[in-house]
Amino acid sequence: MKQALARYLPCLEWAKQYDRAAAAKDSLAALIVTLMLIPQSLAYAMLAGLPPVTGLYASILPLLAYTLFGTSRTLAVGPVAVVSLMTAAALGPLFAAGSAEYVSAAMLLALLSGALLLLMAALRLGFLANFLSHPVVSGFISASGILIALGQLKHILGIQVHGENAPTLLLGLLSGLPQVHLPTLAIGAGSLLFLWLVRSRVTGWLQALGMDARLASNLSKIGPVIALLLAIAAVSLLQLGEAGVRVVGEVPTGLPALSLPSFNLALAWQLMPAALLISLVGFVESVSVAQTLAAKRRQRIEPNQELVALGGANIAAALGGGFPVTGGFARSVVNFDAGAQTPLAGALTAAGIALTLLFFTPLFHNLPHAVLAATIIVAVLSLVDLAALKRTWRYSRQDASAMAATMLGVLLVGVEAGILLGVGLSLLLFLWRTSQPHIAVVGQLPGSEHFRNVERFAVIQSKKVLSVRVDESLYFPNARYLEDRIAALVGQHPQAEHLVLMCPGVNLIDASALESLEAITVRLHAAGVQLHLSEVKGPVMDRLRRSDFLQHFGGRVFISHYEALLELDPQTTEQALKRQQGTPKLANPLTHSLKETHDENRT
Amino acid sequence: MKQALARYLPCLEWAKQYDRAAAAKDSLAALIVTLMLIPQSLAYAMLAGLPPVTGLYASILPLLAYTLFGTSRTLAVGPVAVVSLMTAAALGPLFAAGSAEYVSAAMLLALLSGALLLLMAALRLGFLANFLSHPVVSGFISASGILIALGQLKHILGIQVHGENAPTLLLGLLSGLPQVHLPTLAIGAGSLLFLWLVRSRVTGWLQALGMDARLASNLSKIGPVIALLLAIAAVSLLQLGEAGVRVVGEVPTGLPALSLPSFNLALAWQLMPAALLISLVGFVESVSVAQTLAAKRRQRIEPNQELVALGGANIAAALGGGFPVTGGFARSVVNFDAGAQTPLAGALTAAGIALTLLFFTPLFHNLPHAVLAATIIVAVLSLVDLAALKRTWRYSRQDASAMAATMLGVLLVGVEAGILLGVGLSLLLFLWRTSQPHIAVVGQLPGSEHFRNVERFAVIQSKKVLSVRVDESLYFPNARYLEDRIAALVGQHPQAEHLVLMCPGVNLIDASALESLEAITVRLHAAGVQLHLSEVKGPVMDRLRRSDFLQHFGGRVFISHYEALLELDPQTTEQALKRQQGTPKLANPLTHSLKETHDENRT
Repeated sequence: MKQALARYLPCLEWAKQYDRAAAAKDSLAALIVTLMLIPQSLAYAMLAGLPPVTGLYASILPLLAYTLFGTSRTLAVGPVAVVSLMTAAALGPLFAAGSAEYVSAAMLLALLSGALLLLMAALRLGFLANFLSHPVVSGFISASGILIALGQLKHILGIQVHGENAPTLLLGLLSGLPQVHLPTLAIGAGSLLFLWLVRSRVTGWLQALGMDARLASNLSKIGPVIALLLAIAAVSLLQLGEAGVRVVGEVPTGLPALSLPSFNLALAWQLMPAALLISLVGFVESVSVAQTLAAKRRQRIEPNQELVALGGANIAAALGGGFPVTGGFARSVVNFDAGAQTPLAGALTAAGIALTLLFFTPLFHNLPHAVLAATIIVAVLSLVDLAALKRTWRYSRQDASAMAATMLGVLLVGVEAGILLGVGLSLLLFLWRTSQPHIAVVGQLPGSEHFRNVERFAVIQSKKVLSVRVDESLYFPNARYLEDRIAALVGQHPQAEHLVLMCPGVNLIDASALESLEAITVRLHAAGVQLHLSEVKGPVMDRLRRSDFLQHFGGRVFISHYEALLELDPQTTEQALKRQQGTPKLANPLTHSLKETHDENRT
Repeated sequence: MKQALARYLPCLEWAKQYDRAAAAKDSLAALIVTLMLIPQSLAYAMLAGLPPVTGLYASILPLLAYTLFGTSRTLAVGPVAVVSLMTAAALGPLFAAGSAEYVSAAMLLALLSGALLLLMAALRLGFLANFLSHPVVSGFISASGILIALGQLKHILGIQVHGENAPTLLLGLLSGLPQVHLPTLAIGAGSLLFLWLVRSRVTGWLQALGMDARLASNLSKIGPVIALLLAIAAVSLLQLGEAGVRVVGEVPTGLPALSLPSFNLALAWQLMPAALLISLVGFVESVSVAQTLAAKRRQRIEPNQELVALGGANIAAALGGGFPVTGGFARSVVNFDAGAQTPLAGALTAAGIALTLLFFTPLFHNLPHAVLAATIIVAVLSLVDLAALKRTWRYSRQDASAMAATMLGVLLVGVEAGILLGVGLSLLLFLWRTSQPHIAVVGQLPGSEHFRNVERFAVIQSKKVLSVRVDESLYFPNARYLEDRIAALVGQHPQAEHLVLMCPGVNLIDASALESLEAITVRLHAAGVQLHLSEVKGPVMDRLRRSDFLQHFGGRVFISHYEALLELDPQTTEQALKRQQGTPKLANPLTHSLKETHDENRT
């Protein structure tokens, strides 16, 4: 009971040893992350098509939930760019951005996403995240970054543009150029320049002025909050709001009321695919950040419990008027670098955001959209890694194709289409790769009991017995290929009376492959050839015994391939054993046996 | 040029040696198959929701196309039960059965299916059929058989029932019982009894009367045509048509006009998923029949050319007023047993059907639907194999789950839902299975240079060096699992300074796994541990050299694991080499090396 509690509430673990030193460090980290999170959460809410204040709402309860359930000591949960874009893509076609229905649907999306994560935890379905291969995730994030940046340019230019993909956004921006609002552009471009300088130069300048490196780095993280304050000051003093600069406007003061999103079954069903993709993408991103940070301090995270924690965080987001959240990359690194010791830093951050909501919301009235857009653009462009495509192409064309398909899909059609295209293509390529295992005809190495590929070694083949080695488990992706190849091989060896399948590389024979073996047996019998097996592994043999294949197939299962040949064609085999080796490839087959077996497996 | 022609027109091959003996045998086979095909094609057209005559149309041009392009000598192409059911499932919700739009859409479906098959041939996508694992196909066929039989019972009972799944069909049949039409029931039940006797008993009786076994068997195949004639005679003599027995009615005389189905892009797009499933299911069934028959005479079929031939057959079906076709099981076996030598038997069968259309269609006016339904029921029930579920469960619960899901899906929802459910579940289970490869910590076998699983052998482990062996290729399904496991192992071995990954079982490292290795390297560095590799296969090494991993990871790649340990922890390794073996499990590691390596790989 206590163990189960400790497993599902990892906070019990670190709370036991919590002391003042840890509290001091957590508090400092929380302060810095809070100052970083305020502009980000407002901006990502805008990106998601929601009123900026919902970003603050999504940065309270989810952080508390993660503090209770999370296994990473330093992961910082909250709104993140890619998930906000996916939220906008899912809800944009259904409701008017910012409307009450839209806000309610975003809460529903968070609820569904949280429920799916909990379901995956309960059913141990975390492996589903494997569907998102690295090339697909990398291509998805780069293309999403470009798409987000393009989508935010309208706020920098102060024009109206609609579109879900790169071509329509570009076209809209171009045709909108004559309407550019200059005061907005001034704020937007100024913010971009300021944020770029803060990100790339300021740490160096501060260090040159003699500041400690860590302090300088932490100070540079609150650049966005300074940009916010400067922009608010400019708008207020110059009355730019009246001059047509779009500002956030009235922000309700006070904490969000706890409430369940109105549950509409038809809508829930419609949002389910988006919720699933959001869950998987969020989980993959979050776990990889958490794992990287945990390793730096030789800590551990528990992927299945992370599903629980992220599920809890999203359900908390839904209850507290927010939208889908996950662990953020930049924010978690800042939290880690600022010295956070435990997830309590997250709870303290939540407290900071709550204080902001209680006391500072009037400040945000004059916050221009342009500066939020600049925050987003600078953040997402750092995620774009186009060189990855080239690197991957050099390493594997198949993987690069999956990456390119994902990117093109995201840019030309939309986020969901892109990710589905990428996942579909990687599965296809995977299946194609695994559907054609290496199958070699083998013969006896003269002077030894070893059997090798006839195409690579000067070996002796029995005329009566065809020896075939399969270098892969036998399962449905390659079951029919095996049938084809054996049919072809028997056609090429008309004198064969026996076919021995050498199975040292077979770790599994599934039901499809068993059916194929049965079909092969029947067809070989019809052609007057008997099938045998050799070197079948223990677990595979145990399973075969549970079918009636061994009783019906009429052949034998030999411990070693040599023994099979000795039994089925003693003359050839004994002669070969006595013969001197003619090939220079192997000086002494016995001492090389282990290495050579491995070397030749695949070629 | 000539070679390419021979490849795409396999008929050139057998036509060269065609002689009178072959012609005689082909003619006899064609006669028997024609007599078998007439009732089947009428019945399967009815099953597909089409006017019975379209079944005859679908049995002319497709057979000629297969004669030209097919690589099987004995496959009999034409309408088959499962594909007809899938046609009905695809078109039923869209148009009124038997209407002109329905007929035209069926032609379009055949065209799409043919085009997809040709596309698969051109892009070498035949491996897509691997998605349909044996358990899924077997479950699909059994459940379809039950569904078809249930659907045909209304014709036997002479009532009206609508429904696409087992529960609605059963409910409809039960509520329709009071309206049973007795004359129809008499014909239907009589036909069922007659066909069952012909199928199960008549061959034995004829042999008891001294008839040759093959002749008796062939005679029993024309049972359905006799049932047809008897029913027509009964209806005509007793004027049952006027008594309310549903008959086929006016059947147009003459060959179908060649025409393209009216091409409607929106409809084509809507039918695409059904066309894809029909193509795949048809291909899988046809190829497995063709392969079984070819093996009996040590002939070969060429799966990729079969895609061309079936594609051609379906396009021919579309042009000739038919609907989707494929190679039929029972019909092909009859063709083979009757002695067909070449695909010309198929062309002769087509001629037989053409003659039927020209001269005998008036006969079919009084053909009752009930006897066609009886033909279908007897044919499909022989495909139902419920015991397969039990057999598969005993062998593998995962495979049995996929089979059960397919069956339940087909019976409770419909054919498409069932097959998608089964394919989805088998992919999920496959991914799950492959996502958790066997990863073992290994240690040195005392007195040897061999390294074995610490859990199975009394081995010596270095404190400084953690040795880990992976028994699977590293690719996206297991890349993250590897990260998790290595993180866990390093956590358990706090004294380790080096981690050597032993890779004899790794046949591939894809881009996802490469990223994972890079992440592992970074995390290990952060924890003060250096990663190394050992026993990497040549092709894998070649590929790694194309990335910059080897330059950056900071470790070394050792030829053998022993060499790695000798370098990284010489003291422990040399001591272990000198020690006598303490374990009784291996008497002499050198002579057992090959076998033991294989035996322990997986456990």
